[in-house]
Amino acid sequence: MTTPALTLHHNPKSRSAGARALLEALGVDYEVKLVDFAAGETRTPEFLALNPLGKLPTLVHGDAVITEQVAITIYLADRFPAAGLAPAFDDPQRGPYLRWLAFYGACFEPALMDHAFKREPIDPTTSPYRDYDTVIAALIAQLARADYLLGDTLTAADILWGIGLRWTTDFGIVPKDPVIMAYVDRVGAHPAVIRAGELDAAMLPQ
Amino acid sequence: MTTPALTLHHNPKSRSAGARALLEALGVDYEVKLVDFAAGETRTPEFLALNPLGKLPTLVHGDAVITEQVAITIYLADRFPAAGLAPAFDDPQRGPYLRWLAFYGACFEPALMDHAFKREPIDPTTSPYRDYDTVIAALIAQLARADYLLGDTLTAADILWGIGLRWTTDFGIVPKDPVIMAYVDRVGAHPAVIRAGELDAAMLPQ
Ligand SMILES: N[C@@H](CCC(=O)N[C@@H](CS)C(=O)NCC(=O)O)C(=O)O
Ligand SMILES: N[C@@H](CCC(=O)N[C@@H](CS)C(=O)NCC(=O)O)C(=O)O
Repeated sequence: MTTPALTLHHNPKSRSAGARALLEALGVDYEVKLVDFAAGETRTPEFLALNPLGKLPTLVHGDAVITEQVAITIYLADRFPAAGLAPAFDDPQRGPYLRWLAFYGACFEPALMDHAFKREPIDPTTSPYRDYDTVIAALIAQLARADYLLGDTLTAADILWGIGLRWTTDFGIVPKDPVIMAYVDRVGAHPAVIRAGELDAAMLPQ
Repeated sequence: MTTPALTLHHNPKSRSAGARALLEALGVDYEVKLVDFAAGETRTPEFLALNPLGKLPTLVHGDAVITEQVAITIYLADRFPAAGLAPAFDDPQRGPYLRWLAFYGACFEPALMDHAFKREPIDPTTSPYRDYDTVIAALIAQLARADYLLGDTLTAADILWGIGLRWTTDFGIVPKDPVIMAYVDRVGAHPAVIRAGELDAAMLPQ
């Protein structure tokens, strides 16, 4: 089966680090297009035509454009199943896998922004993500159960979460809880995550 | 193939309306467990053990617990493919399908909350969902292209979005733009959406 060309619109200092690590873990060929924030390259008409929000990661696969870290993670891990990074449709872990991925985008990220910018919280009963403390507690409880989010085996969800928790603990907006830090280290030790980090470091101005 | 029992923790006046409509559209057997907000049933230890955020929809399938509308939508439509509501892994629409689903949870919902509660917006360059106006404009541009999010055919993503846009336009927190309203009507005319609405109405106190 020939696959159409894969292009990741990327910046090494951005949320697209996880998408690159996943591409490395899947062992597929892809091209990287560096998008320079300072030069305004996320606001050019060409880039906004791909992603009207002007955000990275943005993935182009043949004629299809896929935005949003959560969508890119689910898409790639299913589309390239040889690496075994996504539970199959009928695997009992499939639902929980999707749950923790959706939770990243719909709960963790917005709760994190509220916390980072010290915003007045929305009433927790009305908020679709309740509140920051509950989100972090739910995450820690899940991570405390096993080495990875879904048990003993790393999935694509761990690449997103492990890298997301690395920068958010670095920035001091997620607590350096021992359960979280051990998980960050575990995911960070994956050869594909190391390789992506090296490739990204080589893209930075020397 | 026997499938494990499906139970939807549900309240007809909540974000779980879309999950119920999807279950109807898939034509699968499921049980509904009514969760009474006023009686505090989203904060019981039993319910929080399923979903520490205490939110609906919460789906139980055999031993698996799936929370988050976006995860539930992706999970169910893939798990019950006979209804043809999800593009297959290798369908060129698969990526865009996941994109618009992830966008619902990670961009539309938090931007909507900022707008509904007149919160001071986060700087759009820093915000993972940029800002409310851009999110709504991106959505309208996509809906203006065809009858459904991905073209001429309704998918599970439309059930989530069509029902989400129905209540948010009703509440006046999404503009009653003609493109949006035509879409809300189109999805609302789907037999499964009508049936779910009738079943939900019958659950409300008379
Ligand atoms: N909801 C998006 C958020 C992506 C995002 O916030 N990307 C940032 C970089 S970390 C960005 O591209 N910002 C550039 C800009 O707004 O110009 C996702 O999950 O993919
Ligand atoms: N991020 C969640 C949000 C769900 C949500 O906000 N549900 C509300 C009802 S519309 C809820 O259950 N609130 C009850 C409570 O907090 O007690 C999702 O997308 O499923």
